[in-house]
Amino acid sequence: MNRIDIPAGYRPQNTASLKTYLGAIDQIRGRLSGRPEDWRIEEVGDGNLNLVFKVWGPAGGIAVKQALPYLRLVGESWPLPLSRAHFEQLALQEQWRAAPGLVPALLHVDQSMALTVMELLEPHIIMRRGMIEGRVYPRFIDDITTFAAQTHFRTSDLFLTADRKKLLVGTFAGNFELCKITEDLVFTEPYIAAARNRWTTPQLDPYVTRFRADGDLKIAVSRLKLQFIDHAQALIHGDLHTGSVMVTEGDTRIIDPEFAFVGPIGFDLGAVIGNLLLNYLAQDGHEDVPGARDSYREWVLGVVQAFWPEYRRKFLALWREQGAGDAYPKAMFADAAGEERLEIERAAYMARLFGEMIGFAGVKMIRRIFGLAHNIDFEWIAEPARRASCEARAVTLAREMILGSAEIRGPGDLCDKARALRNWNPPLG
Amino acid sequence: MNRIDIPAGYRPQNTASLKTYLGAIDQIRGRLSGRPEDWRIEEVGDGNLNLVFKVWGPAGGIAVKQALPYLRLVGESWPLPLSRAHFEQLALQEQWRAAPGLVPALLHVDQSMALTVMELLEPHIIMRRGMIEGRVYPRFIDDITTFAAQTHFRTSDLFLTADRKKLLVGTFAGNFELCKITEDLVFTEPYIAAARNRWTTPQLDPYVTRFRADGDLKIAVSRLKLQFIDHAQALIHGDLHTGSVMVTEGDTRIIDPEFAFVGPIGFDLGAVIGNLLLNYLAQDGHEDVPGARDSYREWVLGVVQAFWPEYRRKFLALWREQGAGDAYPKAMFADAAGEERLEIERAAYMARLFGEMIGFAGVKMIRRIFGLAHNIDFEWIAEPARRASCEARAVTLAREMILGSAEIRGPGDLCDKARALRNWNPPLG
Repeated sequence: MNRIDIPAGYRPQNTASLKTYLGAIDQIRGRLSGRPEDWRIEEVGDGNLNLVFKVWGPAGGIAVKQALPYLRLVGESWPLPLSRAHFEQLALQEQWRAAPGLVPALLHVDQSMALTVMELLEPHIIMRRGMIEGRVYPRFIDDITTFAAQTHFRTSDLFLTADRKKLLVGTFAGNFELCKITEDLVFTEPYIAAARNRWTTPQLDPYVTRFRADGDLKIAVSRLKLQFIDHAQALIHGDLHTGSVMVTEGDTRIIDPEFAFVGPIGFDLGAVIGNLLLNYLAQDGHEDVPGARDSYREWVLGVVQAFWPEYRRKFLALWREQGAGDAYPKAMFADAAGEERLEIERAAYMARLFGEMIGFAGVKMIRRIFGLAHNIDFEWIAEPARRASCEARAVTLAREMILGSAEIRGPGDLCDKARALRNWNPPLG
Repeated sequence: MNRIDIPAGYRPQNTASLKTYLGAIDQIRGRLSGRPEDWRIEEVGDGNLNLVFKVWGPAGGIAVKQALPYLRLVGESWPLPLSRAHFEQLALQEQWRAAPGLVPALLHVDQSMALTVMELLEPHIIMRRGMIEGRVYPRFIDDITTFAAQTHFRTSDLFLTADRKKLLVGTFAGNFELCKITEDLVFTEPYIAAARNRWTTPQLDPYVTRFRADGDLKIAVSRLKLQFIDHAQALIHGDLHTGSVMVTEGDTRIIDPEFAFVGPIGFDLGAVIGNLLLNYLAQDGHEDVPGARDSYREWVLGVVQAFWPEYRRKFLALWREQGAGDAYPKAMFADAAGEERLEIERAAYMARLFGEMIGFAGVKMIRRIFGLAHNIDFEWIAEPARRASCEARAVTLAREMILGSAEIRGPGDLCDKARALRNWNPPLG
């Protein structure tokens, strides 16, 4: 990850240069209207990787995202390829085709500037923030499961012929540097003494020590990592946590697919429920008096519980209706007996996927507590001991999910375990 | 598979044009010596896909392989991409690096001509022919397991970092049209009423009917097909049967990797043992008096029995010594306890691979009896009823391998099943 190709003409934008840049694009001028010098512009990037601007003119607004050649969270010492903007654009296009209206519309792309112009999502906020504030999103379950089922199914071998699938695999193989970040930060570093790790210390020290010495856990995590690397199942978002979802009560948009590649579907599904579980277990740190967030907590767990059956239902419906891909070819199961047998196999396919989802969810939870990148769900709990108790419950649940995923037969089992853990006062270091 | 890009300047060679072509290449002139017009040249292609020439000069010989833009076996109605010559060249290079001396040395490549010049293998013959004649190859076990273990391990995530692996995956994703041939001819058509199928009829008709109606079998085959498409485990040869091996008693060369891509290792391993088992079960059709080939048959089965433990031993040794890839990262299992736990996982990895090998072997056996492309092991048995008996045993064994691979715990179980089947007189249609 050391050499970064910077295209000739690339330069990071600022609010002044961006007005000039955008003012030269007819489509943008038309959309915003008025004079560029009068446009209002704000840099709002709070993510780890990019510059993000919002721009308003008399007739409307746009969002502009520009990749930086290094990891913003860490600084220039961690170079990052600008090509990720290209892969994000490709993924947005695929996702829009599969799930129109559930990702931001793409308005303009500029390869050499690693820059993407999209519709402005207003008054949307990042869902994670809303959830920390205890806000309910009634559309979330329906929208996230439609997004995931559609984008996964339509890029899987159940829908695509093998030639089109290989084209997709080959294209996104170029996004290996973003994959590498996940491989290192999610699957490896939390389990070793890596310099970039951080955790609530000394409270969580015993957990860190124990997890690093847990051979069964490390093997299970490594199996999941190998799947992440070599199971080219479908185009996945690659970073599908609640920080990649922008919401209002009536609208849901999935953003930031720069980690997209053809990988295991369970990784996306696990990211969704893992981050919901983190939020659930973090609520104890946010309520003013014990129990104040009880009903919200149950809403969160209700989402965890509803996510899988709804995803499964939609994915299976697509498979039955549009399963024209090269896997399980229609011609082999054309008669009634064949269709009946195939339906049993569909259930088996989904059961395997459920198990993988649970395992990946566990891995995604641990990395947010022991690794480099943390979640504000926990970070915003000011008191370390209180935060550490929440976090200890989360890593304990996550470990069970990774090791004992076969015992968790459905989302109900998972929610029961999460509920039970809230009554446990974890010993702290 | 309908549009074939034919590079400007491409034309199929004949013995006259090829002398002129080769005579213009200094390296070739130097190797053969003498005057091109005096070189001896022969077209010897007996495969399905290409022109193959042997060329001799005073100082030595070369082999020339040129891709044709259609499937030779079928004719111009089945176009095939010339790019396969490029992928074959890339695969040969990777394989030579991993297993030097076990593939032919590459001397010259010409992309626009889809042409490859290699060292001439003399007095090698195709191993399948030797085996039909009852010849023993004492080096085969050692050489084929070295070739397979080295080429698989060094292109797997156990050895490669994920970035290099993705580069390999992306490159060979371009070979999708050759993969498609396997997907159709191996995993699909033998189980449906496809126009290209043929079999010994009417003797095998009841088997064909039964297999096409066997839902469990078709599901198991389809699972293997899905693995073939989406499990990017390592660079595999893609067509590793005894027809892709050239041998003398003292030398073994693996040829024709034009089906190479990053796929499941078990597919290569299954091709080896599946084709050995076909030969074993075909011997009854070739012996002059019953029992005349008993000792040869046992040699063949001895190879089946020895193949897996020897492959496993070599693959594991490489993993222990050179396991520097991104899967199961060294840093996570650095201490004695970690290494001990990892060793258990290595055994589990190999156990999974064994099961996959058995399943893929079964699929490779059935396609040679019910599908388009047959093996001379059976084809050269002139008497249809005799041939059909051998074939019925083979497809029966293959079905058990695909469905009951969990019951076959080692190569001994497999050989026992094969031996037992020879005492069975299959009912014929």
